[in-house]
Amino acid sequence: MSVKIIAALFLLQLSGFFGSGSCGKVLVWPVDFSHWFNVRTILDELVKKGHEVTVLRPSTSLFLDVDQTSAIKFETYPTSLSFSGTEEFFVEILRKAIYELPKQPFWKYFSMFQEIVGMSSDYYENLCKDAVLNKELMTKLQESRFDIILADNFSPCGDLLAEILKTPLVFTLRFLPGSTYEKYSGGLPLPPSYVPVVLSELRRPTTLYETMSKADMWLIRTYWDLEFPHPTLPNFDFVGGLHCKPAKPLPKDMEDFVQSSGEHGVVVFSLGSMVGNLTEDRANVIAAALAQIPQKVLWRFEGKKPDTLGSNTRLYPWIPQNDLLGHPKTKAFITHGGTNGLYEAIYHGIPVVGIPLFGDQPDNVVRMKSKGAGVRVDFLTMSSSDLLSAVKTVINDPSYKENAMRLSRIHHDQPVKPLNRAVFWVEYVMRHKGAKHLRVAAHDLSWFQYHSLDVIGFLLACVVTVTVIISKCCLFCYQKFAKAGKKKKRQ
Amino acid sequence: MSVKIIAALFLLQLSGFFGSGSCGKVLVWPVDFSHWFNVRTILDELVKKGHEVTVLRPSTSLFLDVDQTSAIKFETYPTSLSFSGTEEFFVEILRKAIYELPKQPFWKYFSMFQEIVGMSSDYYENLCKDAVLNKELMTKLQESRFDIILADNFSPCGDLLAEILKTPLVFTLRFLPGSTYEKYSGGLPLPPSYVPVVLSELRRPTTLYETMSKADMWLIRTYWDLEFPHPTLPNFDFVGGLHCKPAKPLPKDMEDFVQSSGEHGVVVFSLGSMVGNLTEDRANVIAAALAQIPQKVLWRFEGKKPDTLGSNTRLYPWIPQNDLLGHPKTKAFITHGGTNGLYEAIYHGIPVVGIPLFGDQPDNVVRMKSKGAGVRVDFLTMSSSDLLSAVKTVINDPSYKENAMRLSRIHHDQPVKPLNRAVFWVEYVMRHKGAKHLRVAAHDLSWFQYHSLDVIGFLLACVVTVTVIISKCCLFCYQKFAKAGKKKKRQ
Repeated sequence: MSVKIIAALFLLQLSGFFGSGSCGKVLVWPVDFSHWFNVRTILDELVKKGHEVTVLRPSTSLFLDVDQTSAIKFETYPTSLSFSGTEEFFVEILRKAIYELPKQPFWKYFSMFQEIVGMSSDYYENLCKDAVLNKELMTKLQESRFDIILADNFSPCGDLLAEILKTPLVFTLRFLPGSTYEKYSGGLPLPPSYVPVVLSELRRPTTLYETMSKADMWLIRTYWDLEFPHPTLPNFDFVGGLHCKPAKPLPKDMEDFVQSSGEHGVVVFSLGSMVGNLTEDRANVIAAALAQIPQKVLWRFEGKKPDTLGSNTRLYPWIPQNDLLGHPKTKAFITHGGTNGLYEAIYHGIPVVGIPLFGDQPDNVVRMKSKGAGVRVDFLTMSSSDLLSAVKTVINDPSYKENAMRLSRIHHDQPVKPLNRAVFWVEYVMRHKGAKHLRVAAHDLSWFQYHSLDVIGFLLACVVTVTVIISKCCLFCYQKFAKAGKKKKRQ
Repeated sequence: MSVKIIAALFLLQLSGFFGSGSCGKVLVWPVDFSHWFNVRTILDELVKKGHEVTVLRPSTSLFLDVDQTSAIKFETYPTSLSFSGTEEFFVEILRKAIYELPKQPFWKYFSMFQEIVGMSSDYYENLCKDAVLNKELMTKLQESRFDIILADNFSPCGDLLAEILKTPLVFTLRFLPGSTYEKYSGGLPLPPSYVPVVLSELRRPTTLYETMSKADMWLIRTYWDLEFPHPTLPNFDFVGGLHCKPAKPLPKDMEDFVQSSGEHGVVVFSLGSMVGNLTEDRANVIAAALAQIPQKVLWRFEGKKPDTLGSNTRLYPWIPQNDLLGHPKTKAFITHGGTNGLYEAIYHGIPVVGIPLFGDQPDNVVRMKSKGAGVRVDFLTMSSSDLLSAVKTVINDPSYKENAMRLSRIHHDQPVKPLNRAVFWVEYVMRHKGAKHLRVAAHDLSWFQYHSLDVIGFLLACVVTVTVIISKCCLFCYQKFAKAGKKKKRQ
């Protein structure tokens, strides 16, 4: 072969590999509500780059609408639960988590927490069964020969699908409860001495370990703007805020309302995609507080109009939250502390008043508070004056805006934008058919090997053996000497 | 203030911050030889981006030539050691490390190792003293108001300079010996159960801890192509191979020689920038082996021409190593296993025969071997047939080339090139005047806090207290009951 041919082959090999020409088939195991909004951002980008994206959608999904304008494909499978049953399930689990759980005395708290977790687990287990035990569906998926599974592992099933379909696996998630991170990912230490433990009391059955630990890449929905710095692993990437973007103009009437706030500006208020309604009591406490601030307020609220609602507050069944937070008139964001919303606040540098309801929301709000960019109030026990004072604090004390801007600068100052990194890693795992070279060998060790107890044990055994032999020798010599001494005496 | 003004101010703030317009002043604490070649690459890029780069250069430096064509400034300070003294020092320390140390019996090995480390420490300590105790120099540096110090912490002094000049600090390094990584960087675990410990027997005085642990960013000269995956920290980036680039054409006579190899191709051989000469015995063993292969050989060698030198082997006092390794005719690389050279091999996908001499070279070669892209031979004990068989193996067994190409693909497939990332982080630390938000809180904890022993201790104390109280109560009740019983009996 001539040099030129070899060189050409070499370049061909490189270009074929690195080129963006080859497109893959992506199967997605999603989770509903805010999780979906986050993952959807990655999928839109993958589709834009020419990949074929198929989302496994339960027929009773509340948010995963089959969008005709998008190139994302939906593979809808029938579920054992009805649509109204699903709605009832979510209403009930939210009621328990928001209104009942926090009121429990210490001894009942954990059993109720377990009950809620159990309800959630059962629901997602059933969804997984509905998919995996559906022979027709699984045959179709087998035949589609997907290159990768992108799974939201809040609902564990993607790992099982990856096992069945024999594809590489990328996880996208905000957190795993307690110390399960460490267990599943092979030694990512979140030292409890300086990284607060998330939902420490929840445990999952260990049978998941094997399937989850096989994930090739973990896309975590935070970054060092919000998160406390901690050790991480080569196959973890922190892509928090990947869904954020510059603000688009507001609808005409909303813009008019915002502009009418004058110098005081506006406050944006939402408790997230799952909580559109509140009890009358809480709604009145909140409305009465908001009525007393000089700012105009845009409140996403679907319930009965509170009696105490001030003329400065407008209710909306839905708000363009990212566009509002990016509006120059916006002074503060009152939020339940969901990861998506908080990242929009960080992206646009808006201080927050956090009213955490459940899940990771208290953890998120604690992080904003510890960084001086937020104040926390308690949903069930707060009075109007508590909320009023919190809102006034984050607006009038300039340190909150300064800290929010500092987090924003940290967020924007990354070598590659989080969305591009998320897409990069998905494509990466497809290109390399996995990412075994980024996986710590800890997965292949038992716990005593991981802590080098086998080595320490062997060395200890050596020391003990040598000590025993030496002492035996000494004893033997001493006895001989003593006997000889006695004999001498006798003679 | 009108909305437009606020918006304009906001945008101004963002653009002022993110804009590439502002350029900083970088002070560099370098290390000679191959370390310099690596750091130089970063400096060239910084200068290209408009930053003012000043390198602290000892007057007796062997490699840090004041390059008139470059915009890099050199601040040369007089050293207590003469030029010839410096040369003699390096000849002596290399002789001890390469020819004497490996021949030592087990019990003498570590004392000689300590001796060599001591020599090296003394040399670098003197360089540091020469700079830091030079009042004129320090005043000049103080007045220059540098924005950042970029320090090669093979020679610890950059941390001291950062302390004195009150500037943020970025480290660039290949490794720290033993478990000092963990100590200085605040909890980067290199679990010895699956990450081989580097130079485990060497320890540095703990007084360094305080200064080194303040580094804002650590640029490590490896990546997951070569390194075993292990936990890392948010302020660590792995920028191995940042000096590699596509091959340039060879000088005419060298290209002619390479082309004359025909189908067999060539083998490139160098033992690094520090080792140009060898003992006669070793040179003859090597030359005799190379004479027996069908490939042409380009050997960087400055000593007396070996008697056994084959007609296929040419000696060069210096070779354009990266260009040769990137040449399509190159089949294998015989190397001492220095990090720079190995990364050039990885970059171009060339299998290696490693003849490690000292330092991290054995560790590097072990990694190439474990990944199936290299074979290791022992410098002092190898025979001609050992070397011959090693060279034949990596050339004729296709798995070595395949694995080298796999490492090359992993190396090239990163979201941002290592050089750009290194430059990004240097600029980043200047922009943010440090990077405290990437620093784990472990730095501020004592060892018992880090392992949560304070919490465990408190909980244990609680348990003990409760146990003692309960048992005391039981004892009291029992005694009372027993007394009452006795009284009854008596009645």
